[in-house]
Amino acid sequence: MPDFIVTPWEVSGEVDYDLLIKEFGIEPIDEKLLFYFKEITNEIHPFLRRKVFFAHRDFQWIIEEYKKGNPFYLYTGRGPSGNVHLGHLLPWIFSKWLQEKFNVELWFQLTDDEKFLFNQSISLEETHKYAYDNALDVIALGFNPKKTYIFSDIDLAGTLYRNALKIAKKITFSTVKATFGLDNSSNIGQIFYTSIQTVPAMLKSMIEGKNVPCLIPLAVDQDPHFRLSRDVLPKLGFYKPALIECVFLPNLQQGGKMSASVEDTAIFTKDKPDTVKKKVNNAFTGGQANAKLQRELGGNPSVCSVYKYHFMLFTLDDNELRSIQSKCIGGELLCGECKKDLIQKINKFLNEHQKQREKAKDIFEDYLLKEKVDLKYLINEKNKETH
Amino acid sequence: MPDFIVTPWEVSGEVDYDLLIKEFGIEPIDEKLLFYFKEITNEIHPFLRRKVFFAHRDFQWIIEEYKKGNPFYLYTGRGPSGNVHLGHLLPWIFSKWLQEKFNVELWFQLTDDEKFLFNQSISLEETHKYAYDNALDVIALGFNPKKTYIFSDIDLAGTLYRNALKIAKKITFSTVKATFGLDNSSNIGQIFYTSIQTVPAMLKSMIEGKNVPCLIPLAVDQDPHFRLSRDVLPKLGFYKPALIECVFLPNLQQGGKMSASVEDTAIFTKDKPDTVKKKVNNAFTGGQANAKLQRELGGNPSVCSVYKYHFMLFTLDDNELRSIQSKCIGGELLCGECKKDLIQKINKFLNEHQKQREKAKDIFEDYLLKEKVDLKYLINEKNKETH
Repeated sequence: MPDFIVTPWEVSGEVDYDLLIKEFGIEPIDEKLLFYFKEITNEIHPFLRRKVFFAHRDFQWIIEEYKKGNPFYLYTGRGPSGNVHLGHLLPWIFSKWLQEKFNVELWFQLTDDEKFLFNQSISLEETHKYAYDNALDVIALGFNPKKTYIFSDIDLAGTLYRNALKIAKKITFSTVKATFGLDNSSNIGQIFYTSIQTVPAMLKSMIEGKNVPCLIPLAVDQDPHFRLSRDVLPKLGFYKPALIECVFLPNLQQGGKMSASVEDTAIFTKDKPDTVKKKVNNAFTGGQANAKLQRELGGNPSVCSVYKYHFMLFTLDDNELRSIQSKCIGGELLCGECKKDLIQKINKFLNEHQKQREKAKDIFEDYLLKEKVDLKYLINEKNKETH
Repeated sequence: MPDFIVTPWEVSGEVDYDLLIKEFGIEPIDEKLLFYFKEITNEIHPFLRRKVFFAHRDFQWIIEEYKKGNPFYLYTGRGPSGNVHLGHLLPWIFSKWLQEKFNVELWFQLTDDEKFLFNQSISLEETHKYAYDNALDVIALGFNPKKTYIFSDIDLAGTLYRNALKIAKKITFSTVKATFGLDNSSNIGQIFYTSIQTVPAMLKSMIEGKNVPCLIPLAVDQDPHFRLSRDVLPKLGFYKPALIECVFLPNLQQGGKMSASVEDTAIFTKDKPDTVKKKVNNAFTGGQANAKLQRELGGNPSVCSVYKYHFMLFTLDDNELRSIQSKCIGGELLCGECKKDLIQKINKFLNEHQKQREKAKDIFEDYLLKEKVDLKYLINEKNKETH
């Protein structure tokens, strides 16, 4: 048994991604595929080069269809149970890049229903509030408002539920038991929920009245949902959605992913410069016990959380990264300097992000899909019209 | 083990209602309760006198609250998987009478989602179509359009799903397994469904912002759903709904309830006079082999399907019914005459019902609650407004 857990609702331990590829039955993203991809995009996003996005299902098919003149749309999302941290941004930043490169639509799902069902201590009103708060972080990244649809499951429930029924009819309890580890003590909302997460992978085809390929950038823990989608949607006459999957941003301590539930080891998009400074300065590194030893023996970037942040998000220039790496190993770069560099980069990013996040409040409606559902209003209208 | 089955999705065998009262843990409706009830209504509907409505949960509490100036609302429904037959009308006719007597609202749910999920061979489009077709039979009975809200689950899904989540979170798979006999091979929509059926029992309280008692007239097979509602709703701060439960109208053969799936032994609201005549003439009776024996030995109304139709729906005058009974037992009344009488009564009823059913098409909107959900429209509106 591996000593890590990866499900849509729990990630713990030091994840072995090679093992996960075998367990989940996903395909690694190899050089050949990247070469094929580059024929369209002319460049390869650092997330791909660095295997932050490391695995896929049918990504090659998506490119083939695109080359044939059959473009895809993007679908990703967020489970809103708290504030957004940097780890959440990985698939969104990548989606933004894909949207620009391919000029395609993004459908962004806020799963306020899911977070309510899977978290005993949170109310539906709270997850719904977080949904729209978190959406500001999405909008802040600069998605094309003409091609981006953000929706909360609760506020698109009329559309989602009626289509989820068709999916739910094809999935048994045995299947969700085997796929997610749900059991007799699971609540019936949790059991049903996956069918709601599948719907956006067919919505565009429903609207267009013809099959449209769907590409889902996601963190690898969400793969089980879409394994089911890929099983069920062809039975309803739709394409299987394609997936492109990323690793987790580690936390600032030793091992494990960045988690909103361990506040001090995660950096939130709302964090102030001083908070970031404090958190990074407390981070676990691969450095030696003191500056003298570091100069003599050098550090170990491969176990260093600070280096991982440079690698995954904040030092995307390859030459610069190589320099950090070799100077660390060679003992030239001390942890304090390296942390200072990271703190500056994070705070520069967050300063801009927070500005855009404020502006997002004014352009929120440009992105939002929301059904006009109000029972009191419907009753009043009906009663007015009644003969 | 009893040799009958009563679940929301299957009723078979000769139902022993006394045994069912014990099994389900429902209360029989006794004389004392009827006496208490009559203080308000001044009369007792024949369905109550004749124990067609034979059991309840908290019906006395409903009357008590009403007397205190805290009136209830009615909630009932229909699973639309085919045409409406006479058996379906029992709770609706009784609801109509209650609405008149108490001047209260009726919320009428068309469970097109349920029928789709529980019937392998029917599409969602079909159950949805049946929902609105069946609604014509409801409207034909003459409910007060100002106090009646008819809705399809699919067309009120935005409202239903968001509230169903709160109910679903309180119900485990173990519970639906024990309550409905669902198992590992059940689909995840079936497992979730009961939470949708509970919502209308809390909707009026949601809208009013204060607790409103809810009375549900229903056929006894639906009791398991509301047993769960009664367990869950108090946990969410709502009243337990009260129930008043009826027996099944038997089919025209020996034993078993009238079922839409055995066409020749059920009388549908769309049946033509000749069809009714043929079906009743083929009915199983408690009569003797020929007229001579009948004159000598008399018939047996207690096993006779024709007598049951007189008793339950078509001879509601007590003196007239007693006369039929005694003449049958005494050998004065032959089955042919008795059938002729029933055929006339059914056809008179259906003639009027079918007229009203046609008229219902014009006043449909006066009853209907339907969310204005149209994703294409929402997308167009959003894109128009986008900066």
